[in-house]
Amino acid sequence: MNIYDVSKKANVSIATVSRVLNGNPNVSDKTRAKVMDVIEQLGYTPNVFARGLGLNTIHTIGIMCSDSSDLYLADAIYFLERDLRLNGYDAILCCTGYELETKQKYFDLLCSKRVDAIILAGSKFIEMRPKDNAYILDGAEKIPIMLLNGFLEGHNIYSTVCDDMAATYYATSQLIQSGRKKILYLYTSASYSGLNKLKGYQNALSDFKISLGAEYIHQCSKDISAAKDLLVSLHSQGLEFDAILTSSDSLAAGAIKFAHGLGIQIPETLSVIGYNNSILSRCTEPELTSVDSKVEALCTTTVNTLMGVFSGVNVPSRTTIAADLIKRATTNF
Amino acid sequence: MNIYDVSKKANVSIATVSRVLNGNPNVSDKTRAKVMDVIEQLGYTPNVFARGLGLNTIHTIGIMCSDSSDLYLADAIYFLERDLRLNGYDAILCCTGYELETKQKYFDLLCSKRVDAIILAGSKFIEMRPKDNAYILDGAEKIPIMLLNGFLEGHNIYSTVCDDMAATYYATSQLIQSGRKKILYLYTSASYSGLNKLKGYQNALSDFKISLGAEYIHQCSKDISAAKDLLVSLHSQGLEFDAILTSSDSLAAGAIKFAHGLGIQIPETLSVIGYNNSILSRCTEPELTSVDSKVEALCTTTVNTLMGVFSGVNVPSRTTIAADLIKRATTNF
Repeated sequence: MNIYDVSKKANVSIATVSRVLNGNPNVSDKTRAKVMDVIEQLGYTPNVFARGLGLNTIHTIGIMCSDSSDLYLADAIYFLERDLRLNGYDAILCCTGYELETKQKYFDLLCSKRVDAIILAGSKFIEMRPKDNAYILDGAEKIPIMLLNGFLEGHNIYSTVCDDMAATYYATSQLIQSGRKKILYLYTSASYSGLNKLKGYQNALSDFKISLGAEYIHQCSKDISAAKDLLVSLHSQGLEFDAILTSSDSLAAGAIKFAHGLGIQIPETLSVIGYNNSILSRCTEPELTSVDSKVEALCTTTVNTLMGVFSGVNVPSRTTIAADLIKRATTNF
Repeated sequence: MNIYDVSKKANVSIATVSRVLNGNPNVSDKTRAKVMDVIEQLGYTPNVFARGLGLNTIHTIGIMCSDSSDLYLADAIYFLERDLRLNGYDAILCCTGYELETKQKYFDLLCSKRVDAIILAGSKFIEMRPKDNAYILDGAEKIPIMLLNGFLEGHNIYSTVCDDMAATYYATSQLIQSGRKKILYLYTSASYSGLNKLKGYQNALSDFKISLGAEYIHQCSKDISAAKDLLVSLHSQGLEFDAILTSSDSLAAGAIKFAHGLGIQIPETLSVIGYNNSILSRCTEPELTSVDSKVEALCTTTVNTLMGVFSGVNVPSRTTIAADLIKRATTNF
């Protein structure tokens, strides 16, 4: 039940329902009685309204992230905190690391502090096995759970995601149209977002009738040196590639280091594309073509959606935001 | 008054005072009476003890930073949150921006929420005019104020700082000993830390009897392109320099871009040194020699000092941590 249902059934405006709930005197006794009747009939949920009205709430949102020093997540925390504060909410931050057990522990801790909602920032929170997500579904029975670039189906769970699949599809097709045929794909994690990025790459290859074996897809830690070392090893094994698409700028920075070490010219003989358009993309030489995954828009939408949930208005359970490809000097298109 | 004073005056151990305050039954009635008498004589401060005992506290620390997406501050927030949580404290984060008015507003907001302490992360909080710091001194009358890489003299204010002056002194002297004579200094801010860095550079020049004019010192926004553009402009004006020391890695990244654009060889004809040893230092080509300003140690010390304050033990009001110079490929020593 939300404020719309009450307004519809009582045949009054949403503003009137709001006035009744606020105890505003500019409502006739008759109307007030009608609205209160409907609220009772529909099963009044004091918490939902109370939160929207600023009652029964500590005005504090829990933000969980795996690692606030990660470039993408540091940006996300900055924008989430800013937008929550603009709406009068504090942010309690928890950096959980990557272990499921620790994530669950911090989630329960935040719930026990009676935060008004929890934002799970980044796509590392949704696990492959459904039972490992049960704690999130349980939590959502009490408070809204907001997923920033992650997705989980469930009541009171709201996702805002970047269209990662379309982004890597577009990046891959641009590489192909610029003449590249042997495109290596490096990724850091098989998260929701990670799998979508991989799929975008695979779909583009398939649509352009380019067939590349599994040896063109590699997982790698997000460390610059790890990416460089992996590429040196693949190169020495004789694998041929003329482009490298990556799921993060740090892997792309490693790819540039690899090329520099072997005297391979970028973008003449090798194209490189990063992801997230972080500060790294302006540090490398040449500067890096990278996907702008719109972290600010994701954060603003997440907070706006949450405020909608608190107000009892109808909000979408899933919002998708398009990425941009920012062209710099590591590609020849 | 702290737990030491009580222990000394009552002529019992600190453990005994602690047991009395904890209501531990393993204390004789006589000893208990003696300790309570002393506490009363010295002017019992229930808050200080209560916080140490986990009473009258919300176990929440406010962290203020100007911008959590800044590479240095993102790391600081990560380590502070981790260490506070290890001690059973939550962290409420406020990103204040750079305006004094906003900083004061957020500071008052955190105080009004009855946080147990406030950590001011980064050196951007201490202003040049004493009256602009009055709100911090006022706040310190109620709760401990912790400064991470900032310094302000005052009761209940505790600073943990990196020895920035020694770090730039050492970096400058290494440049001189490697044969550099015309060392440009670029910095972002005239904060407490910023002024110390500048002084270290100036002291080293002076001790080595190198005299350089004011045209060798420039302030610049932390943007990579801004630093590059500034250097292009100085170079075109005919200023000669064979080394660039900077107060942050992003300025140093701009210096490398400048050199690359004009075909100046690094480190053969130009040395570059950054500051903070951030991920940028591994992204540039060549990789950047940079000062490791020990952010993790600063955070751990800040939290340990705070826990000491809560326990009523004697803690230093100022702790200084030495930096390291991490040598990579932009210097020839």
